[in-house]
Amino acid sequence: MPVNLPPPDPASLFAVPGVELGIASAGIKKPGRKDVLVMRIAPDSEVVGVFTQNRFCAAPVTVCKEHLHGEGGIRALVVNTGNANAGTGEDGLRRARETCAALAGQLGCEPERILPFSTGVILEPLPQDKIIAALPAAIADLKPDNWAAAAEAIMTTDIVAKAGSRKVTLDGIEFTVTGIAKGSGMIHPNMATMLSFVATDAPVSCEALEAILRHAVNRSFNCVTVDGDTSTNDSCILVATGANAAQPSAPVIMDDGDARFAPLRDAVTDLMIQLAQAIARDGEGATKFIEVRVEGGRDEAECKQVAYAIARSPLVKTAFFASDPNLGRILAAIGYAGIADLEVDAIRLWLGDVLVAERGGRAPDYREADGARVMAAPEIVVRVDLARGDAAATVWTCDFSYDYVKINAEYRT
Amino acid sequence: MPVNLPPPDPASLFAVPGVELGIASAGIKKPGRKDVLVMRIAPDSEVVGVFTQNRFCAAPVTVCKEHLHGEGGIRALVVNTGNANAGTGEDGLRRARETCAALAGQLGCEPERILPFSTGVILEPLPQDKIIAALPAAIADLKPDNWAAAAEAIMTTDIVAKAGSRKVTLDGIEFTVTGIAKGSGMIHPNMATMLSFVATDAPVSCEALEAILRHAVNRSFNCVTVDGDTSTNDSCILVATGANAAQPSAPVIMDDGDARFAPLRDAVTDLMIQLAQAIARDGEGATKFIEVRVEGGRDEAECKQVAYAIARSPLVKTAFFASDPNLGRILAAIGYAGIADLEVDAIRLWLGDVLVAERGGRAPDYREADGARVMAAPEIVVRVDLARGDAAATVWTCDFSYDYVKINAEYRT
Repeated sequence: MPVNLPPPDPASLFAVPGVELGIASAGIKKPGRKDVLVMRIAPDSEVVGVFTQNRFCAAPVTVCKEHLHGEGGIRALVVNTGNANAGTGEDGLRRARETCAALAGQLGCEPERILPFSTGVILEPLPQDKIIAALPAAIADLKPDNWAAAAEAIMTTDIVAKAGSRKVTLDGIEFTVTGIAKGSGMIHPNMATMLSFVATDAPVSCEALEAILRHAVNRSFNCVTVDGDTSTNDSCILVATGANAAQPSAPVIMDDGDARFAPLRDAVTDLMIQLAQAIARDGEGATKFIEVRVEGGRDEAECKQVAYAIARSPLVKTAFFASDPNLGRILAAIGYAGIADLEVDAIRLWLGDVLVAERGGRAPDYREADGARVMAAPEIVVRVDLARGDAAATVWTCDFSYDYVKINAEYRT
Repeated sequence: MPVNLPPPDPASLFAVPGVELGIASAGIKKPGRKDVLVMRIAPDSEVVGVFTQNRFCAAPVTVCKEHLHGEGGIRALVVNTGNANAGTGEDGLRRARETCAALAGQLGCEPERILPFSTGVILEPLPQDKIIAALPAAIADLKPDNWAAAAEAIMTTDIVAKAGSRKVTLDGIEFTVTGIAKGSGMIHPNMATMLSFVATDAPVSCEALEAILRHAVNRSFNCVTVDGDTSTNDSCILVATGANAAQPSAPVIMDDGDARFAPLRDAVTDLMIQLAQAIARDGEGATKFIEVRVEGGRDEAECKQVAYAIARSPLVKTAFFASDPNLGRILAAIGYAGIADLEVDAIRLWLGDVLVAERGGRAPDYREADGARVMAAPEIVVRVDLARGDAAATVWTCDFSYDYVKINAEYRT
């Protein structure tokens, strides 16, 4: 069960002027299930994205990159669940392009103005005819206050839909940032197995928007792991419509020299952290939400390396599932994280507020009952001090339960 | 249940002249359980070892390295299960040394002639008094034909004892190689979480013996993964007594220029491969034994990198558990293995004898029924051709089942 993750309240998801969302049933995997999302974007919006670094990147990822690099803006996104269109070679590219062309025809734009996204089973042909047949219904459903339904439509093994909204006041004008995400398994950067679509009505140049996206993703989706598997389809898209109702002609934020840049960047980052944490809270089979914070490193990279060694260890994760303060497993993971000159005697390890290890062994005042108390909670903070510098990094994950095995053993049945 | 891994037949384990083994119950974790092994070695034997690269290496590993680097030969090994004496700082070193001193006193040698080994739970103080109290019984039990009982005494979560024997004829004289191993979880190189003790009565110089051990370990224990967790205690020891009964004064094998070097090296390697595969066959919760062979790489390192990405993926391993030919997960693992310039369209993937993927997608002739047939077997070979060179590497692992979670969630209860 997801850990402290209530479904989004539709009333808390603010519409973003310039963005409309429509959903429909294509019957890709289950008849009647809403499995297609169309997101229509106002003309002259800026759209930027980051994508999986898996060499077997899926066909829609390849097409997205082509279309983002082309001339002319993006007018719509089309997303399907139930089939990832990954490991599908040239034929997969053809099917993704066919989907784009069909939507473009119905919206009256060029196919290159469409970004396609797919998530689901790998290595099976995309049933693009079913998706195309569902497009008219999705287009008929287009409306600005449809974010909650959109978040539900892109779920795969997710139990809870993931969506959030922020209001940010820039130079006296209130702007909106709203986004959705999906992801539950095959989660590891870069990126996690996830799709995320976030939009704002602030006016932002392409360059500034890319800087905001990079900043936010590095502090959110690139800090989450469920099982260490990096997906073929991960995509995170940030849209800026500049279509604010109160001031549709506000000057464009060109770069970080603009006083509005930092507050907008922080609002996007804050929302993406919420969405990234939601993915770990809803990790396949999750019963615990775990934050691993590594401090005192020489640089952020080595802190993240240690944090990920802990966060992806099946032995650590099964101990969390069992609420068993088997802290030696955490020390072992720190030890094999790959930092050759680590001084293990200097390291300190906390579980919540309890100092559990120092000087290469158990802390003298540590009592198993204290560890067990922290482990019993649904949210646990693991903190490590490497005692060799000032850098820090945080990673989020979940525990490893019977249900992880069950979900993934039975995924295709 | 272990996959095609019958318990060793004591009659098939040949005694090694110059080596005696004795076991006893110290009651470390369970009363009555044989949990202490003493292995006495004839004077003038050569003893070499390789150890975990985990920075949190256990106290006995530190002491072993000191004693192996010292002057004078090794006269005995002492092994306990139930407690790893890892993450125990200075106090752990003191307890390991105390155990050595006690055994040395009873065998009439210096403490530096003893190598200590521990396996079991991490971060808890070693009950060395219990071990020391059990030493007289272990010494009274010393005998050459005790390998099967020794293999049982060093088990932790192992279900089946692991032992094997080879005969090798060198220059007309028959020599013996016999060894035991333990390991089941926290298994990943370098090394796997394992202890292994192998002995031969061939006469070998320290340098030649080290070359044989490096060769054998790189092709055996360093090719196995269960869960990607590298232990704090891994140790592999190779002993050459030179105490062959038929020819106790055979000339010493000084280096690989000796015609006897290669056949002895191959016998040791062959035995260690058997023991390493036994660890994967008995991996925690294993129901399938999986060999991942990656060919066509530029060098062995990149082949191993791809093989390990596949072999440690929880998604791949749960699919094997379910006998589900969800081959996209294997392609995804190849894609995130970290080879930046991999040409995914050139890669071919076989499951057993079935070509399942080529040109970036599913092979045209592939039928799901063929994949399912291969997956249903208890032993599965995954073969990948990277099509960019002549190097190859093989890695062994097992599937990922409910029982892995159960065993590790309940390990300390």
